[in-house]
Amino acid sequence: MTLQVGVIGTGMIGQDHIRRLTQVLSGVEIVAVSDIDRDRAKASAPGTAEVFDTPEALVATDRVQAVVICSWGPAHEAQLLACIAAGKPVFCEKPMVTSEAAALKVMEAEVAFGRRLVQVGFMRRFDADYRRLKAVIDGGSLGAPLLYHSVHRNASVPEGLYTSEMPLNDTLVHDADISRWLLGDEVTGVEVRVPRRSTRGKDLRDPVFVLLHMASGALVDVEISVNIAYGYDIRGEVSCEAGIASLPNRPATVVSDRHGIRQAIPEDWRERFIEAYDQEFREWIAAAGSGTATGPSTWDGYAATLVADAALRAAASGGLERIAMREKPALYRAAAAEAA
Amino acid sequence: MTLQVGVIGTGMIGQDHIRRLTQVLSGVEIVAVSDIDRDRAKASAPGTAEVFDTPEALVATDRVQAVVICSWGPAHEAQLLACIAAGKPVFCEKPMVTSEAAALKVMEAEVAFGRRLVQVGFMRRFDADYRRLKAVIDGGSLGAPLLYHSVHRNASVPEGLYTSEMPLNDTLVHDADISRWLLGDEVTGVEVRVPRRSTRGKDLRDPVFVLLHMASGALVDVEISVNIAYGYDIRGEVSCEAGIASLPNRPATVVSDRHGIRQAIPEDWRERFIEAYDQEFREWIAAAGSGTATGPSTWDGYAATLVADAALRAAASGGLERIAMREKPALYRAAAAEAA
Amino acid sequence: MTLQVGVIGTGMIGQDHIRRLTQVLSGVEIVAVSDIDRDRAKASAPGTAEVFDTPEALVATDRVQAVVICSWGPAHEAQLLACIAAGKPVFCEKPMVTSEAAALKVMEAEVAFGRRLVQVGFMRRFDADYRRLKAVIDGGSLGAPLLYHSVHRNASVPEGLYTSEMPLNDTLVHDADISRWLLGDEVTGVEVRVPRRSTRGKDLRDPVFVLLHMASGALVDVEISVNIAYGYDIRGEVSCEAGIASLPNRPATVVSDRHGIRQAIPEDWRERFIEAYDQEFREWIAAAGSGTATGPSTWDGYAATLVADAALRAAASGGLERIAMREKPALYRAAAAEAA
Amino acid sequence: MTLQVGVIGTGMIGQDHIRRLTQVLSGVEIVAVSDIDRDRAKASAPGTAEVFDTPEALVATDRVQAVVICSWGPAHEAQLLACIAAGKPVFCEKPMVTSEAAALKVMEAEVAFGRRLVQVGFMRRFDADYRRLKAVIDGGSLGAPLLYHSVHRNASVPEGLYTSEMPLNDTLVHDADISRWLLGDEVTGVEVRVPRRSTRGKDLRDPVFVLLHMASGALVDVEISVNIAYGYDIRGEVSCEAGIASLPNRPATVVSDRHGIRQAIPEDWRERFIEAYDQEFREWIAAAGSGTATGPSTWDGYAATLVADAALRAAASGGLERIAMREKPALYRAAAAEAA
Repeated sequence: MTLQVGVIGTGMIGQDHIRRLTQVLSGVEIVAVSDIDRDRAKASAPGTAEVFDTPEALVATDRVQAVVICSWGPAHEAQLLACIAAGKPVFCEKPMVTSEAAALKVMEAEVAFGRRLVQVGFMRRFDADYRRLKAVIDGGSLGAPLLYHSVHRNASVPEGLYTSEMPLNDTLVHDADISRWLLGDEVTGVEVRVPRRSTRGKDLRDPVFVLLHMASGALVDVEISVNIAYGYDIRGEVSCEAGIASLPNRPATVVSDRHGIRQAIPEDWRERFIEAYDQEFREWIAAAGSGTATGPSTWDGYAATLVADAALRAAASGGLERIAMREKPALYRAAAAEAA
Repeated sequence: MTLQVGVIGTGMIGQDHIRRLTQVLSGVEIVAVSDIDRDRAKASAPGTAEVFDTPEALVATDRVQAVVICSWGPAHEAQLLACIAAGKPVFCEKPMVTSEAAALKVMEAEVAFGRRLVQVGFMRRFDADYRRLKAVIDGGSLGAPLLYHSVHRNASVPEGLYTSEMPLNDTLVHDADISRWLLGDEVTGVEVRVPRRSTRGKDLRDPVFVLLHMASGALVDVEISVNIAYGYDIRGEVSCEAGIASLPNRPATVVSDRHGIRQAIPEDWRERFIEAYDQEFREWIAAAGSGTATGPSTWDGYAATLVADAALRAAASGGLERIAMREKPALYRAAAAEAA
Repeated sequence: MTLQVGVIGTGMIGQDHIRRLTQVLSGVEIVAVSDIDRDRAKASAPGTAEVFDTPEALVATDRVQAVVICSWGPAHEAQLLACIAAGKPVFCEKPMVTSEAAALKVMEAEVAFGRRLVQVGFMRRFDADYRRLKAVIDGGSLGAPLLYHSVHRNASVPEGLYTSEMPLNDTLVHDADISRWLLGDEVTGVEVRVPRRSTRGKDLRDPVFVLLHMASGALVDVEISVNIAYGYDIRGEVSCEAGIASLPNRPATVVSDRHGIRQAIPEDWRERFIEAYDQEFREWIAAAGSGTATGPSTWDGYAATLVADAALRAAASGGLERIAMREKPALYRAAAAEAA
Repeated sequence: MTLQVGVIGTGMIGQDHIRRLTQVLSGVEIVAVSDIDRDRAKASAPGTAEVFDTPEALVATDRVQAVVICSWGPAHEAQLLACIAAGKPVFCEKPMVTSEAAALKVMEAEVAFGRRLVQVGFMRRFDADYRRLKAVIDGGSLGAPLLYHSVHRNASVPEGLYTSEMPLNDTLVHDADISRWLLGDEVTGVEVRVPRRSTRGKDLRDPVFVLLHMASGALVDVEISVNIAYGYDIRGEVSCEAGIASLPNRPATVVSDRHGIRQAIPEDWRERFIEAYDQEFREWIAAAGSGTATGPSTWDGYAATLVADAALRAAASGGLERIAMREKPALYRAAAAEAA
């Protein structure tokens, strides 16, 4: 009952997932890889995995039971549609797609197929800290959530490669997705404020401050700072009617020395979310083995696309940019209920 | 060299300050009291203090070297002007005054007098936690402050007495003043967002979420929740270019029992700020003994008035309400430099 | 390259390890089980695993490449000797054996074999918190470790089944082993003090307070409380020459409510050490796949036996009971170096 | 109703208390000083205070209503007896006296006088953290206290001046007194263990580890480290039958930077206990104004003397040194009840 997987895209994140699937997790075997760079695909292929020339060929081969997509964003739409057409479960790294139109196409195809096949790579939902936080809120003892304060800090971003749009269309999507999930809610509007700029990032728009208006009326504020120097620091605090629930410090030795009483902060997202990535795939393997998907869905990828678009518009307009989502297909309503 | 003080207003806060001046602090003697309710004044008058029929008479008497104003807000303007006319140092509880016009009048009188006489009751500036926080920021090792996250939570407010305007014109002024002081900055604009309402406060607009735009470009976000049930919880976190500085938990025994590992939270503002109030008066006594004032000035009271006005306008308009301050008189520039 | 494993003993801990080896970990297959209760073995046997009548038969069969021993303590000696005789890597739950003589026999057999085959189940060495703590100490920035304060608290123990000897010969061994490992040291003497008894445990000797004298002169004090009601709370703090290093609170949502600001405490050892057990077997599988063992060795099992014996003597005598270990065989000196 | 005080001994601690009594506290006036060094007394005398040639003369003068003793330890006995003979309340810095015989003499004199006059300078009992800790224990929700873990760390001690006896007869008394007070208990025996020596203190016996056996059976363990480099770190944790209560971190800004997430640690005892010293004298002034004393009594000074003696004996013998106290005079039984 080993799941036979094909991996599309063997760049940095693809190679990390190949390592995870071959060395960390059980019940899975990589039988096929493909990459736009055939040599890289070859070099990354584990054991007896076959190297395919095209994603389409990989998806089509009988040996592949489920697919992992780690190619670049613009290629996702066609690859997802191919997987759905073949009825094969597929894990797709974020961004699911890069336009609302593409998101709708994928969603319509999956709805037509009639069963969830797509899982989108929002790994925070698999993080133990976030899961405990959600359990506290869902437990209901604190009353309804009214405010969520989300903090997203990167030690640094690659100069030149990371542009002023990316806090809003690349980084923010994690905060938006986890807000939707934690609160069981949808984003209906986005505002962006650009404070005094950090001198550490040259011309980069950094930090940015975002307000997400939720369907329930709850308000989410997001600090995104991407050149904060001291570490990768992810925080979240939910203010409910009768109490507060927050992510804790990360586990780290408490040291008392001449710098005070202190705990180390993760260096980067890999260190912070390594167990979440493992768990994400553990659950994907189980779901894909049953011919379906779990966790973040096409609907969530669609929502993320809309938020990113609205955030860019809001940064330009200075005003509140509203989001109008389609009616939620029954396929995803069930999934949401189950996830809760 | 004992400072001889007259107290105007012997309601709840007035009585608390009388207790403080007679039982806790040294170098001070209350020699006069007055209150709109003469019987209450009599009952509150300590030792040999004389009861005066009017604030004016109290201010005028030779025995009174300095004045403490704890009357209701609308009475402050005339009382402050009387003190300034008499050249007597005066501590004035917030709000300093209740309109921009009144603030300007008091400020002009003090500027004309040529020396600071007025100290406004923003006690947070005397709190050890806030002072340490400011010292860290001013130390400069974290770079410039870019964002400040201020959280102001009350366990409950008296139903009916605490109206939907008060989060903005009564509660917010503490966050606005401490933001100005921590960042060494001025507020130039205010936005207000009203999230999903807590069901604990009936028709009360609660919580509210406020953005203060600062002259430097720094952005301050303020959560005000006034029916949070679990305690009086004041938080503050400054995001600088290369690090973060935050208020700590309040000192409280760490208990491990069936409720987890935990620390108690203050019940109300009295418990939270009792030492700050003591320190506020300790420093006022010293300054008043030298014929002047220290800490929050008429300028700060003026700024608070403008922020409260702008916040109410912003709640109504939904937009950004700008604040235009007069040029800062030299008298207060010196004071600011000294305070830093 | 899947490791084919036989499991001896399918009681509670045996079943938990079977679950772990079949559902959580990769690279391993359970091909054989045996238990003193054949029906229980049958019921626990996963998939196609064969049920053997005797441990000896299980060890002898060619299909079994490595063995997991979860039988009761007195049976371990013979089973370990059988594994060593067969040259098969073996994971053995604690206690490795129940007498010094047995420990020496197993050690001599392994030394004669010439390669480590035995890994003893001290799972704390695989816990991320303890590993980070050791890394800090070994990093050397705090100077030499002088004192170690180890706290071992159980919410409750089964009345009647858990006797007054068990804090010393069953519970203490974890603290003793982790002390030896953290400090890179050996126990040379044991003292036991019996404080005022908890009324929660009837006639049980609880708590007990133990001093371990280490070869370096470092002193370890251990609090063992086994009916503490509020949770399973494991703490450790190393006082070094120029600083302190401690285990942190366990990760748990920070909740502010009417019980204060608080984090949950693990309920029991399963919750606390679940990841450590997983990691313990992950590393065992890798080592056993190479025909050897890693982590806690026969030498460590021997040391644990001596400490437990000395602790019981010390409780009876009230004095310092010394421990005299054999000279450490080269086989384990290498292992220690590698582990560091 | 200002208390007129004479100060004997104007060395470092004497001068600090003079500062406290004149600048910080109310209701008190220093009217007399004396010191073995008359010039130093003169230089330290505030305002109109008279300088006396001898302690006896200072105690005898009518203007002095109460006395503060800050001379060196061996001089305390005679000075205390003089105060008691004069019926004047007296605050005496630790050590109260330097021998059991002297302690008994002072105690007998006070008992004969019939009212408490002596308050001994164990300032920890006035520290807010310790008071909250005691309130939690006395509250009873955690059950009876069984173990107390007391940690006493100094950044450094003056080489040469601080001898190997002083951890036991100077430093330990604070831990012993606070243990007696927190647990409402008496010390009946002392054991001392000397671990591996810190290389930071040359030939100094440092750290030392002390066990205090209490009358209730509760056991107190004390770590004393006096050259720990990183700060002045005082910790305390009480293990009760059904829960734990501990001193918290000291309030300090939470900073996140390249050293981690961290809080500063006090540099020395002055910083750590400054408010406790203030409060100690605030309560002494109130009690002395009523002609009596509060807080740590002659009985407590007597107990401290016995513990210090026993600790030195225990370090020499390696065994358990028992303490036999006189029966507690009724005078101190009442005081204990009131203090609780």
